[in-house]
Amino acid sequence: MSHANSPVPDSPRPALIALDQALAELLAQALPLGGHESVSTFDADARVLAQDISAALDVPAHDNSAMDGYALRCADLLDTDVLKVTQRIPAGSAGHALEALGAARIFTGAPIPAGADAVVMQEDCSALSDTGCVQVRMAPQPGQWIRRRGEDVSRGAVVLQRGHRLNPASLGLAASIGFDRLSVTRPVRVALFSTGDELVMPGEVAPGDMKPGAIYNSNRFFLRALLLRLGCTVSDLGIVPDRRDATIDALRAAAAQHDLILTSGGVSVGEEDHIKPAVQTLGELKLWQLAIKPGKPFAYGRIRRQSGSDDVAHFIGLPGNPVSSWVTFLLLVRPFVLALQGATDIKPQAMSLTANFSWPKADKRREFLRVRRDAAGGLSLFDNQSSGVLTSVVWADGLVDNPPGKTIAPGDTVQFIPMSALLA
Amino acid sequence: MSHANSPVPDSPRPALIALDQALAELLAQALPLGGHESVSTFDADARVLAQDISAALDVPAHDNSAMDGYALRCADLLDTDVLKVTQRIPAGSAGHALEALGAARIFTGAPIPAGADAVVMQEDCSALSDTGCVQVRMAPQPGQWIRRRGEDVSRGAVVLQRGHRLNPASLGLAASIGFDRLSVTRPVRVALFSTGDELVMPGEVAPGDMKPGAIYNSNRFFLRALLLRLGCTVSDLGIVPDRRDATIDALRAAAAQHDLILTSGGVSVGEEDHIKPAVQTLGELKLWQLAIKPGKPFAYGRIRRQSGSDDVAHFIGLPGNPVSSWVTFLLLVRPFVLALQGATDIKPQAMSLTANFSWPKADKRREFLRVRRDAAGGLSLFDNQSSGVLTSVVWADGLVDNPPGKTIAPGDTVQFIPMSALLA
Repeated sequence: MSHANSPVPDSPRPALIALDQALAELLAQALPLGGHESVSTFDADARVLAQDISAALDVPAHDNSAMDGYALRCADLLDTDVLKVTQRIPAGSAGHALEALGAARIFTGAPIPAGADAVVMQEDCSALSDTGCVQVRMAPQPGQWIRRRGEDVSRGAVVLQRGHRLNPASLGLAASIGFDRLSVTRPVRVALFSTGDELVMPGEVAPGDMKPGAIYNSNRFFLRALLLRLGCTVSDLGIVPDRRDATIDALRAAAAQHDLILTSGGVSVGEEDHIKPAVQTLGELKLWQLAIKPGKPFAYGRIRRQSGSDDVAHFIGLPGNPVSSWVTFLLLVRPFVLALQGATDIKPQAMSLTANFSWPKADKRREFLRVRRDAAGGLSLFDNQSSGVLTSVVWADGLVDNPPGKTIAPGDTVQFIPMSALLA
Repeated sequence: MSHANSPVPDSPRPALIALDQALAELLAQALPLGGHESVSTFDADARVLAQDISAALDVPAHDNSAMDGYALRCADLLDTDVLKVTQRIPAGSAGHALEALGAARIFTGAPIPAGADAVVMQEDCSALSDTGCVQVRMAPQPGQWIRRRGEDVSRGAVVLQRGHRLNPASLGLAASIGFDRLSVTRPVRVALFSTGDELVMPGEVAPGDMKPGAIYNSNRFFLRALLLRLGCTVSDLGIVPDRRDATIDALRAAAAQHDLILTSGGVSVGEEDHIKPAVQTLGELKLWQLAIKPGKPFAYGRIRRQSGSDDVAHFIGLPGNPVSSWVTFLLLVRPFVLALQGATDIKPQAMSLTANFSWPKADKRREFLRVRRDAAGGLSLFDNQSSGVLTSVVWADGLVDNPPGKTIAPGDTVQFIPMSALLA
């Protein structure tokens, strides 16, 4: 420690940066990656559309029946309730124009024959089998049980927009208008590094043999799973080497092959490791103290792929603390990675629910409390909100986004972000 | 109503069965599959635990520092604010007992040395470097910034229970107590069949060349994606053969290799295809008319793997209509598949939100309306609630579970199920 002989603080208390400001600065760096690829619609779940998807046909392509039953002309039923069954139109077939006082036996999805203006469900009809007639026991309204051409999708309409993150429903929708392949942005290639001398990989040392201060590395497990859910490809590059020059070499090599290098640990003020100076050597690094709890320290950097080049890989350093790492991933890395993929919907929306707990001690930082919905539909609080391990996160089904300085009393309305939305 | 000659209805209007009853009957059949496997914790996302996971160690294993700073004895600060820095304890190292009027430079996660009873953040201290002392500018409380041994997980505690469906957080938690492998139930093997003469696979016929009545098969795309998200292995067996005996052979062969055969289409009353009689030949089949909208027809069957055997594959037939197929999958097949995997948490919980729409016409069936949360935090309704294509499902971010016979006015509280919870 070379601060002369004056009482300078080890590290001055750094200014805290608001989450929204940090996210805005981060997203300003998240220019969508170039490179599209064509993938089978079967395999495109969780990918991001690189192009608008427009319908080249109407859906349905023709007026068709919404029910199994009989297609008929309403006016024919003014004087009789018995019609002659003159044709049979299964789904996939086309009928012919309906005769006066005729009915078409029709099945769900089959095209409505010309002249028919309603369908009566088979449950409301009786076949008079020896006569080839049907008795209609219910007076239909014109248009009844007819799905109109183009009612669901009209030809030329953009049904899915560039930047849409595909999900099972949108794969189905794309298939329904004939797309067997989709143009999607390429996956974000992420390199995961670990840092921290205290970290031991599970399986390498038995619990009974752990040295004092040693802890199992858990962050790599959940970070990898979270990245895979976001559609990234993930390289696990292990532990950061123990020497400065080796760290620089490892980071430079990772930057050449990846879009984002993600670490956890080593970003607190005063924390000692080789990552921070190595990133600074290779590019630039910003160290933030986020005004959130958990999750204070956070680093964003850019690593030049060639000396003097503008071609950079992104670097993000998360706090080493598992819950802090988890929360900062979901609040900052997740939208960043989605933005790199060109996704447009990157922030989950909170909803107003009722707290069934008390949070009497406000923090000056914005807090993300681990909560679970109870049987009454309100929110219960996990009793230990410390950020040590992930028990609270496993227990919780969502986070309460609590503004700085706000206490919570039972019955208060709070902002709830479902975990399922953050993990999707 | 003259039931003239042979006045039998085509099909009598079948009794509707309540969703909860159908689900209970279905789940009564969903005995967990036998067979566990050990997988790397890295690869266990979305799998279901076959065993309880208990901690073989305390987490933290020792009292440790929650901050970078100085570990000290509070009583020493009664008479002075300057302490001698006598040791340095990075994370991963163990210190030694603290001398009187001594302080240990300590980093987050490092074990608290014997004798120390608090940590002061480095931001609240000033190193007096030429003296090897530190000036403490804030009076600490005993226990301050110390994480207690076992505070997060105590040795012997069950941290994850058998039947828990793993997610990124629980993978991290398992890793944090040393599990590099996990015993999980085996994946459900699902065979997907298509049925319906009107169906055309995307890519096989261009939109402009589609015959009247032909529609693109979309259900296979979203059903496969939904099944994969549930951790199933999926075989796509294509179109059901066009002859009875070939259908029986195909179903029998599929039953031998799969736990569940899933089809969509062909289960409406009066609908004609070979699936229903083939399932009946090979085992048993129940045809239900669910009292829900969308999603009325639904079939559950059991196919004997050997004649006369109790060893069966499950059969589920969904409605062919895409939205009906989607909704019945999420409400019935999803919990069924999770139960086969031995998962305990199989039903998503609805939450109370405010409708910002009007639904003036009640249905006698329980309805699942496609809605989206608006900027005000209330719910908007997709304007076309017909069940034709998936536009409403893609647009929606959740379903309103609306009881039979209930109208909705703006401002009413309704039960909302987030789509993200149904897709997870």
